[in-house]
Amino acid sequence: MMDPQKGSNSEQAALADFLSRRERLLGKNAPLFYDTPLHLVRGEGVYLYDAEGNQYLDVYNNVPNVGHCHPKVVAALTRQASTLNIHTRYLHHAILDYAESLTNTMCSSLSSVMFTCTGSEANDLALRIARQATGSLGVICTDETYHGNTAAVDQLATLFNGGKPRGPHVKSVPFPDTYRPPMEWDANDLCDRYLASLDRAIAELEEEGLGVAAVLLCPIFANEGVPTAPPGYLQGVVDRVRARGGLVIFDEVQSGFGRTGNMWGYEYARVIPDIVTLGKPMGNGHPVAGVVAPTDLVDAFRGDVMYFNTFGGNPVSCAVAQAVLDVIQEEQLVKNAAEVGAYLRSGLRVLQQRHDIVGDVRGPGLFIGAELVCDKSTKRPATETARLVVNKMKDRRILISKIGRFDNILKIRPPVIFSKSNADQLLETLDEVLVEVHRDGVLK
Amino acid sequence: MMDPQKGSNSEQAALADFLSRRERLLGKNAPLFYDTPLHLVRGEGVYLYDAEGNQYLDVYNNVPNVGHCHPKVVAALTRQASTLNIHTRYLHHAILDYAESLTNTMCSSLSSVMFTCTGSEANDLALRIARQATGSLGVICTDETYHGNTAAVDQLATLFNGGKPRGPHVKSVPFPDTYRPPMEWDANDLCDRYLASLDRAIAELEEEGLGVAAVLLCPIFANEGVPTAPPGYLQGVVDRVRARGGLVIFDEVQSGFGRTGNMWGYEYARVIPDIVTLGKPMGNGHPVAGVVAPTDLVDAFRGDVMYFNTFGGNPVSCAVAQAVLDVIQEEQLVKNAAEVGAYLRSGLRVLQQRHDIVGDVRGPGLFIGAELVCDKSTKRPATETARLVVNKMKDRRILISKIGRFDNILKIRPPVIFSKSNADQLLETLDEVLVEVHRDGVLK
Repeated sequence: MMDPQKGSNSEQAALADFLSRRERLLGKNAPLFYDTPLHLVRGEGVYLYDAEGNQYLDVYNNVPNVGHCHPKVVAALTRQASTLNIHTRYLHHAILDYAESLTNTMCSSLSSVMFTCTGSEANDLALRIARQATGSLGVICTDETYHGNTAAVDQLATLFNGGKPRGPHVKSVPFPDTYRPPMEWDANDLCDRYLASLDRAIAELEEEGLGVAAVLLCPIFANEGVPTAPPGYLQGVVDRVRARGGLVIFDEVQSGFGRTGNMWGYEYARVIPDIVTLGKPMGNGHPVAGVVAPTDLVDAFRGDVMYFNTFGGNPVSCAVAQAVLDVIQEEQLVKNAAEVGAYLRSGLRVLQQRHDIVGDVRGPGLFIGAELVCDKSTKRPATETARLVVNKMKDRRILISKIGRFDNILKIRPPVIFSKSNADQLLETLDEVLVEVHRDGVLK
Repeated sequence: MMDPQKGSNSEQAALADFLSRRERLLGKNAPLFYDTPLHLVRGEGVYLYDAEGNQYLDVYNNVPNVGHCHPKVVAALTRQASTLNIHTRYLHHAILDYAESLTNTMCSSLSSVMFTCTGSEANDLALRIARQATGSLGVICTDETYHGNTAAVDQLATLFNGGKPRGPHVKSVPFPDTYRPPMEWDANDLCDRYLASLDRAIAELEEEGLGVAAVLLCPIFANEGVPTAPPGYLQGVVDRVRARGGLVIFDEVQSGFGRTGNMWGYEYARVIPDIVTLGKPMGNGHPVAGVVAPTDLVDAFRGDVMYFNTFGGNPVSCAVAQAVLDVIQEEQLVKNAAEVGAYLRSGLRVLQQRHDIVGDVRGPGLFIGAELVCDKSTKRPATETARLVVNKMKDRRILISKIGRFDNILKIRPPVIFSKSNADQLLETLDEVLVEVHRDGVLK
């Protein structure tokens, strides 16, 4: 029998062939989105198109931050790739011009750039720098995080590693969450309780003789589900880690480049880190990433270690990244993320009033989490319903995802060109879908 | 007083400004080539051009393997970047078509691909796969190697890390070198002696309870200076490591894609590894890289670990890599590397007869090492003279480099489009430079 959501029998057979070829060439379990995967062939602005020509509103992808296939970015890519693409042991202007443009958007202490190709490489390098600078090995992260896929960075995560424990030099602390704190904690005391966990992690690292090299955090706790942290929490973390000689690394791979309605996540968080790491949206999809740190820290690291990254900072990557920065400024996308983000959050809060299943709406700028719960008082996570909602939204040609410890938080994170009319389309469709899942059965 | 090699006073002042800006933005000690760094602005085919319009013959760069800014590669890049650039959790054809084209050039056991953005990420991932598959931690490498810049891969190298020892789970073995073996070893017994070192490394890893996860080797020992290994050495390594349950990883980042006059370094070495890692020339400068392994190994890893690489295998990277593969085949560049490589080696051997300083000429295809020595009988490395030769070649508008434990081996490794007439230009100029350094003073 034919499933109307899955297309005709011949379409289903074609998809089965596609998937079996994919399993053979990329391995089983190569990750895919949606119950019925989506085959995309074109992107433009805030829209993606599937093989049948259907248009999807992209409310998920933060990498094509200034819009899919932005013509200025593609033009810069083509121009430089036609002219010169070479490593950085020859001199070229593009890398210096971009490094200057980039650091000019940051506070004065963040003054030198080490280029990499991916956010994983950037976080891996930042940890190397911190360990080199402090002579300590210990690293602190949150307990529901992900910072990348290298062996060293993977030691911080348990999220995707099949339940293995964190690496030997890593301590985790509960991520701060005023909506869903540990049950036994007093709501008036949350900041102190979360910081007390940090104090314990620091003490353990010191007792084990590892010391504190760094805390590595996303300033908006993106992979934790953009929880709302208690006021003062991040400043407390920074003060405590610095007091023990550690460095504060902010992973701005997701929070950077305007996402929060500020240029940088650390501005949103109102805390200045020692090091930031960059990635995803930096090249609008082109693999360029990096570490920004005080010049003396970079000097000291480079003095000890001959770090070289073959593709990192090549003129093509820098021309692309410069075009992305220019577009963010010309199109005032930071302001747009702030304004459309606020508009969308308030629309979602109307839905929260209307639908029992929406327990919390939060997040900075255009990174919004809408937490689905079976019951607003018990806050029992509506994990299965979140899966249904995401798939039903896709069937209605809107792409969102879900995230969080219980996989029950709708992840709303469009390119920062997202408009109020795009937001209206999202809100109307989500309203319909929430009505439908409620009508169709019990929440779970 | 003006140094004619360094240009006018105003040119020198401009260079000083450039370098001071670079130190501020990228940190002191960001690596640079040549005594007076080269400022490049354009590349085309086998040529690079500096800011004054001077043309340089590129006999160094292996990344722009099919030639700088190859129009077919740039066209593929532009076409796909204008159409769709997205991660791999949606379906797209480009990644499967490329994975199929790529694995079709390899032996049947190398059947599935995991895409990354850099060779460092590929080696880091290959070590994760090997440790996961074997349940062992120990890794064996050579004693003068470099496989990349992540924290885990950096543990294999001592070459660029300021003299720190290798990581705790790593054992190194002397790289095989029939020209410069340990003095006390019998020349007739070299293969057995080198393999005995490997046996000891395996035994140590087993005694320490680490076991053997993998040996990670470049099949042409590129960073060791393309030494000639004793016949049977690599097969001996493979047999011994497999016998102890370890996997054989060949780092084909430099040896792959036609460099050796074979498509893959393992064909040149006549040994089939369990896993290969790819990088540098794969996208002719575009950041695309990967791990190729048996499907069951990839399945098992992906079953345990949710490995995802944001930019890895995106349609733009795959379109570019496919264009590179197509150009290699259409322009018969593997055959070219074999033929021009042989021609160049025999020309260099003529120079070796003519110049006392050239102690050895070796290497596969278009990766040639010419070892400079103060004296052909003692083989004392002519390190300082090698530096002079490389800089004098640059002043004559030919780019080569040097490599090896003593930094005395001329590194001759042009794009694989290099022609016999390019080879003639290199040979004539090198002949002149060798005459000049001999005339100018003592070798050192």
